[in-house]
Amino acid sequence: MTAINENFQKLPGSYLFSEIARRVAAYEQEHPDKKLIRLGIGDVTRPLPEAVTAAMHRAVDDMATAGGFHGYGPEQGYDFLREAIARCDYQARNVDIQPGEIFVSDGAKSDCGNIVDLFARENRVAVCDPVYPVYVDTNAMAGRAGDYDEAAGRWTNLIYMPCIAENGFIPAIPEGKADMIYLCFPNNPTGAVATRAQLQAWVNYANANGSVILFDAAYEAFITTPGIPHSIFEIPGAETCAIEFRSFSKTAGFTGTRCAYTVVPKALERGGASLNSLWNRRQCTKFNGVPYVVQRGAEAVYSDEGRAQVRETLDYYLNNARVIREGLTAAGLTVSGGVDSPYVWARTPAGMPSWDFFDRLLRRANVVTTPGAGFGPSGEGYIRLTGFGEATATQEAVRRIKSAL
Amino acid sequence: MTAINENFQKLPGSYLFSEIARRVAAYEQEHPDKKLIRLGIGDVTRPLPEAVTAAMHRAVDDMATAGGFHGYGPEQGYDFLREAIARCDYQARNVDIQPGEIFVSDGAKSDCGNIVDLFARENRVAVCDPVYPVYVDTNAMAGRAGDYDEAAGRWTNLIYMPCIAENGFIPAIPEGKADMIYLCFPNNPTGAVATRAQLQAWVNYANANGSVILFDAAYEAFITTPGIPHSIFEIPGAETCAIEFRSFSKTAGFTGTRCAYTVVPKALERGGASLNSLWNRRQCTKFNGVPYVVQRGAEAVYSDEGRAQVRETLDYYLNNARVIREGLTAAGLTVSGGVDSPYVWARTPAGMPSWDFFDRLLRRANVVTTPGAGFGPSGEGYIRLTGFGEATATQEAVRRIKSAL
Repeated sequence: MTAINENFQKLPGSYLFSEIARRVAAYEQEHPDKKLIRLGIGDVTRPLPEAVTAAMHRAVDDMATAGGFHGYGPEQGYDFLREAIARCDYQARNVDIQPGEIFVSDGAKSDCGNIVDLFARENRVAVCDPVYPVYVDTNAMAGRAGDYDEAAGRWTNLIYMPCIAENGFIPAIPEGKADMIYLCFPNNPTGAVATRAQLQAWVNYANANGSVILFDAAYEAFITTPGIPHSIFEIPGAETCAIEFRSFSKTAGFTGTRCAYTVVPKALERGGASLNSLWNRRQCTKFNGVPYVVQRGAEAVYSDEGRAQVRETLDYYLNNARVIREGLTAAGLTVSGGVDSPYVWARTPAGMPSWDFFDRLLRRANVVTTPGAGFGPSGEGYIRLTGFGEATATQEAVRRIKSAL
Repeated sequence: MTAINENFQKLPGSYLFSEIARRVAAYEQEHPDKKLIRLGIGDVTRPLPEAVTAAMHRAVDDMATAGGFHGYGPEQGYDFLREAIARCDYQARNVDIQPGEIFVSDGAKSDCGNIVDLFARENRVAVCDPVYPVYVDTNAMAGRAGDYDEAAGRWTNLIYMPCIAENGFIPAIPEGKADMIYLCFPNNPTGAVATRAQLQAWVNYANANGSVILFDAAYEAFITTPGIPHSIFEIPGAETCAIEFRSFSKTAGFTGTRCAYTVVPKALERGGASLNSLWNRRQCTKFNGVPYVVQRGAEAVYSDEGRAQVRETLDYYLNNARVIREGLTAAGLTVSGGVDSPYVWARTPAGMPSWDFFDRLLRRANVVTTPGAGFGPSGEGYIRLTGFGEATATQEAVRRIKSAL
């Protein structure tokens, strides 16, 4: 009899977004006349930059001719894209990352999930709390999280690092020894960013303990505050302890176009093995590269027109985030994020549970948010709102929330 | 200290294609005047069908407007594509597969590799010999293959099922108990196909033993012989024991465009768990769907124009395979495959080792092939040639091989 990976059976249902959808659908059925505004979802809404679609059209034309046709590409991505990434995202910031350290993929979610293949089961994993659920669930599937304690909302073998108002939403280095450490800045869901000194402390810890930092920088393009690092590799010593995940999803509107990349420095070794070589072996064995047409689109993000168009869209979302942040503050809520991030993280009034506040905003303001409790125990007492909506709808939502409170 | 997955260290280098590349490069350097013809590679060369590129252009235009923009799609694929697949690839053949049993992905290689996530480490794995290396390497990475015996060219814990001339390249049911059984028909590399009765025996075995058949049907579109099953689900009982992998790569020229799908029947359960639910959970956690533009391209494969254009390309490759098969037979070689498959499997003359025959064809005919030994111990004494080249180059290659022998 074929035996199933029993760790899958331990996973709770993907509760958060399905429960939101259930409550929203029930409300809409009761009140078909109400026009809901959705500020809960982390998906972009603006069209692809014109430079990107023009490049994709040209690439589709290539594929229509025998001379321009592209079959299997390199599993690691085409040189034209790896070189553009190395040059524009790293070398232009004086960070020495080479094309051979960049692996182009179909998404940061895939890479964050698949990277766990490289590590032994017995490693201790540390995650921020609240947290993007993929880091937790993929380690649970691999047997590294232990058992799920339903009442506590925690896995028995994970190290949870609270990110709360009291520590400025920046995790403290844990007392127990952590082998694989997930950090995400600008953070999803809190919108917090880490300073150079804060990241340096993590890099020092990881190098001293032989830990590996899995650094999710999917939102780096939203950083506006000068001096905040965009990459973990801006921190001296990171090249011997960190892997970085980046994505075109939020930067350039690629959530439905699928392109991302992961940086694994050649200097990163554990137990005598090069993690760059291990990831290369994993990708060559279980992945066949990103569509040629998509890689040409991603390359265009680095053109002069592409950069200008991307900047315009980022500013549009950041302006939405500002409108939410200022509006909720004016309404008397305690708010963070939304400056270097599309995410605004708001404390519920008078310690109200986050699902109750979600319900109140749904019913009184007809605005959909995301309850913070869905991101982990320390998310209780918060809600997340996003700047990814349409501008006038976002303004209207903020007006409604203000009058509902 | 972070511990590495030690199973990665047990993998031999990806020997086959790098060794081919090394020998070819060395020959080209010695003989820069020679024009090589490459019949070794399994990659397509004809452009995408016009129906596909037209659909992709329309989809790129969608992505350029706020109204037509598509962000995150369903991880399982858009309904428009899942429904087209269910209708055209299954229901039209009287096979009852529903859209909810179809998971669209970026490639059969990804799916064949990632499916092992669902299974416990202790399962015994059976593979054909010779074999597509991905089945072996992905199980080795998961610790299910044991250790690699360099001298024998085998993993200690795998069950190898010889596919040789004596059994018509169809594996016999093994004596030991196999939990996960990889079958691929039309076969890569041998080009063999299995009859209904042969597949029924496997389905009966799997249902009797609670095994799961992982059925790779990536080459089904090349079947020309009437009565040969295109899907394992044409076999009664397969819905309780089989998972099927299919791809647009070879069918519609998508090797550089990346779209495939995996069928996990809702009736397939092991240990009380639905494998459809497990795969859904895996994909929702570690994958974010296939690009909208690519899925629109794949949908167009099922249009009337798309089907006609795909048929034309398949016939082009099958005609190449026929030219190779007939030419090598006329040259005195014993040849199989190439009828229901783009692959021709040729016995080396007088029991010559396959790397020696590879070298002889490289040097005397300037034709690149693939030595069968690279696909496993039972591939020794064979070479693989493919019909995926350009038609006149293929004819020229056959002429050269004939005069070289």
